Amino acid sequence: MKDLRETALAVKAASAELGLLSAEKRNAALGAIADALIAHEADVLAANELDLADGRANGMSESLLDRLALTGARIEGMAEGVRQLIALPDPLGEVIEEFTRPNGLRIRKVRVPLGVIGMIYEARPNVTVDTAAIALKTGNGILLRGSASALRSNLALANVMRGALRSVGLPEDALAVVEDTAHESVDRIICMNDCVDVVIPRGGAGLIRRVVQTATVPVLETGVGNCHIYLDESADYDMAEAIVVNAKTQRPSVCNATETLLVHSVWATAHLAKLLAKLHTLGVTIHGDAQVRAVDKLALPAGEEDWANEYLAPELAVKVVDSLEEAMQHIARYGTKHTEAIITEDAENARIFLRCVDAAAVNHNASTRFTDGFEFGFGAEMGISTQKLHARGPLGLREMTSYKYLVYGNGQVRQ
Amino acid sequence: MKDLRETALAVKAASAELGLLSAEKRNAALGAIADALIAHEADVLAANELDLADGRANGMSESLLDRLALTGARIEGMAEGVRQLIALPDPLGEVIEEFTRPNGLRIRKVRVPLGVIGMIYEARPNVTVDTAAIALKTGNGILLRGSASALRSNLALANVMRGALRSVGLPEDALAVVEDTAHESVDRIICMNDCVDVVIPRGGAGLIRRVVQTATVPVLETGVGNCHIYLDESADYDMAEAIVVNAKTQRPSVCNATETLLVHSVWATAHLAKLLAKLHTLGVTIHGDAQVRAVDKLALPAGEEDWANEYLAPELAVKVVDSLEEAMQHIARYGTKHTEAIITEDAENARIFLRCVDAAAVNHNASTRFTDGFEFGFGAEMGISTQKLHARGPLGLREMTSYKYLVYGNGQVRQ
Repeated sequence: MKDLRETALAVKAASAELGLLSAEKRNAALGAIADALIAHEADVLAANELDLADGRANGMSESLLDRLALTGARIEGMAEGVRQLIALPDPLGEVIEEFTRPNGLRIRKVRVPLGVIGMIYEARPNVTVDTAAIALKTGNGILLRGSASALRSNLALANVMRGALRSVGLPEDALAVVEDTAHESVDRIICMNDCVDVVIPRGGAGLIRRVVQTATVPVLETGVGNCHIYLDESADYDMAEAIVVNAKTQRPSVCNATETLLVHSVWATAHLAKLLAKLHTLGVTIHGDAQVRAVDKLALPAGEEDWANEYLAPELAVKVVDSLEEAMQHIARYGTKHTEAIITEDAENARIFLRCVDAAAVNHNASTRFTDGFEFGFGAEMGISTQKLHARGPLGLREMTSYKYLVYGNGQVRQ
Repeated sequence: MKDLRETALAVKAASAELGLLSAEKRNAALGAIADALIAHEADVLAANELDLADGRANGMSESLLDRLALTGARIEGMAEGVRQLIALPDPLGEVIEEFTRPNGLRIRKVRVPLGVIGMIYEARPNVTVDTAAIALKTGNGILLRGSASALRSNLALANVMRGALRSVGLPEDALAVVEDTAHESVDRIICMNDCVDVVIPRGGAGLIRRVVQTATVPVLETGVGNCHIYLDESADYDMAEAIVVNAKTQRPSVCNATETLLVHSVWATAHLAKLLAKLHTLGVTIHGDAQVRAVDKLALPAGEEDWANEYLAPELAVKVVDSLEEAMQHIARYGTKHTEAIITEDAENARIFLRCVDAAAVNHNASTRFTDGFEFGFGAEMGISTQKLHARGPLGLREMTSYKYLVYGNGQVRQ
């Protein structure tokens, strides 16, 4: 097994080289990776089969086995994702700002890579390819620490990608999978301040909490989404139903799915029974307060833990509120600053909600499911940030960059 | 003594209100604070006198006593600094970007406050006023944890500022000095993820290291500057001398002062003896490699620890190198990514240096001393960031903000 520290130092050294390459060279590497994934599909599938066999032997659940499984179609999908990055604008070297000081100093703020990204993730091997490709596109090295259960798949994918880098004359160490999958290796990576510039955890709430608690390297916290929809007094019924159904049922397991519905009491009197009946037909379990249970005999009682819960399942907490203010107070208390939505025909209430609610995305008359790098048109996504420092919401290419100031003088000294 | 947790929760509650105030109201608060500092000068000086008396009794050094001491002139300087913020453009609400997706969703990225800033700092009471005023200007609450030795001064300043906030009808809890100056209170603040959005440590390397190592709240790391000047083969002598003298001697105790001089061997043969003689007349101690000591009999031998040392004093490490590449390798190894400068008449060498050197500021023919919020024209400064995440270099008003996405729909759901 390769030594973790040596691996990290190699990625750091390669990242310095990578960050100075032209966009053409970095894009050529992406093209070579996409081709190599297709060409070496059989090797990757064979490695994945070994991981799957172990998973079955260890009693891994069907849903986890499905997340772990690669197929020809899934590999082609990864390759296509890599190819799509090629066409996206190069963020590096972009002049963000330029100004001249009274003493004649010309200062230019230009976009540069972050350096080395430490990616800590669970289960799905496609994350290995998706995030490595984004790192290469943005001139960053990447240290990939996936699950033990996907190690052979991840190593096979990394080997293919490293071979592709070699084939176009680029340093293969720009990306590396950490072979040490002991729990302790995560703790080591996230405290390697001299090698790693940012850590991105992607996975369950436990993993993310552990990384945030332990890391000394700056972290981009992703993921937890206790998202709300507030149905205001004037919400159009058909729009409300379509959005709530979409936000709750289209893909309940993801962070931008809605977990709590807040309903204005006037709207509730007119429409709530119908809306909840519709949700029941779609297999959604309702957890409601007393007013909700009065119109929906199937609803289970909702308590404190329901308001705070990210179900990630076809379950929905529902609460009746008497005003926009009460809805916003509930969101301020229980929300995770991911995505919050108001459905209303009242422009002033929409304005107040969008202004006052503190979250990465605040939506008017749109599903919470849109908070996503692809839906936002970024063409790529490393995750969804729920912190306020550096980047908020979908992490695309620009969010994987920093900047530096170039200062042009002709002998200036400070007075 | 007020409970730390209660204090933090009060700042958090006030920050939510503050972030929604108009620029006019926030600027009115700054004006009231500037007036109140002048009006209550006697109270502040009396409190400061108690801190100074204790400092003298405890054998505090003259230089620390000087940093702690307030005078009428210093208070007027603080008030003037607060007033200058009023005229600066308001960063909040700025539309950073706006775009429409093919499905008709209109997405607007707008600048918002970070929330609550946790400021951990040492000694100088002016930091209390400077950083609180920047926080108010940018709609952020601020929790101020200064030194025990300056507690009465800091509390007196905070009381004056809180009174000024009350006088204009704003929540006084937007800023609060932490009364608990036990070491443990720092550890508590920097792990209050539910109350504090970012921690900024300002002080010595030990304080900064401790915060980075312990914090679970995102940190903006500031300060350590092992800055280099590289004198290239073609450097103009007079310009080189003026810049080196300025960067080393104008204020040796600050992070953007130069600590190591790298000199091309050809230039060294022609000019180094003269330059070092000049530095000796200014009282600078030289630590040189063998080639330096060959032309400067006063130079002390330089070793590994000199290349890594941030002297913060009139001492300079000097090394002769054979090429631009060797200079850049030295900087990559020992630099702290703060500020690096090349002095050269060769445009191509300048281009390579500015492109390849990884630091917050990379200068051509200008002193390293310019890396500063005021010198960059930001009109304010919370510190100098040496990390790559969020902000790099001088932290001005915009660097104290985050953003959110406002998503405007008319019923869109995700396919």
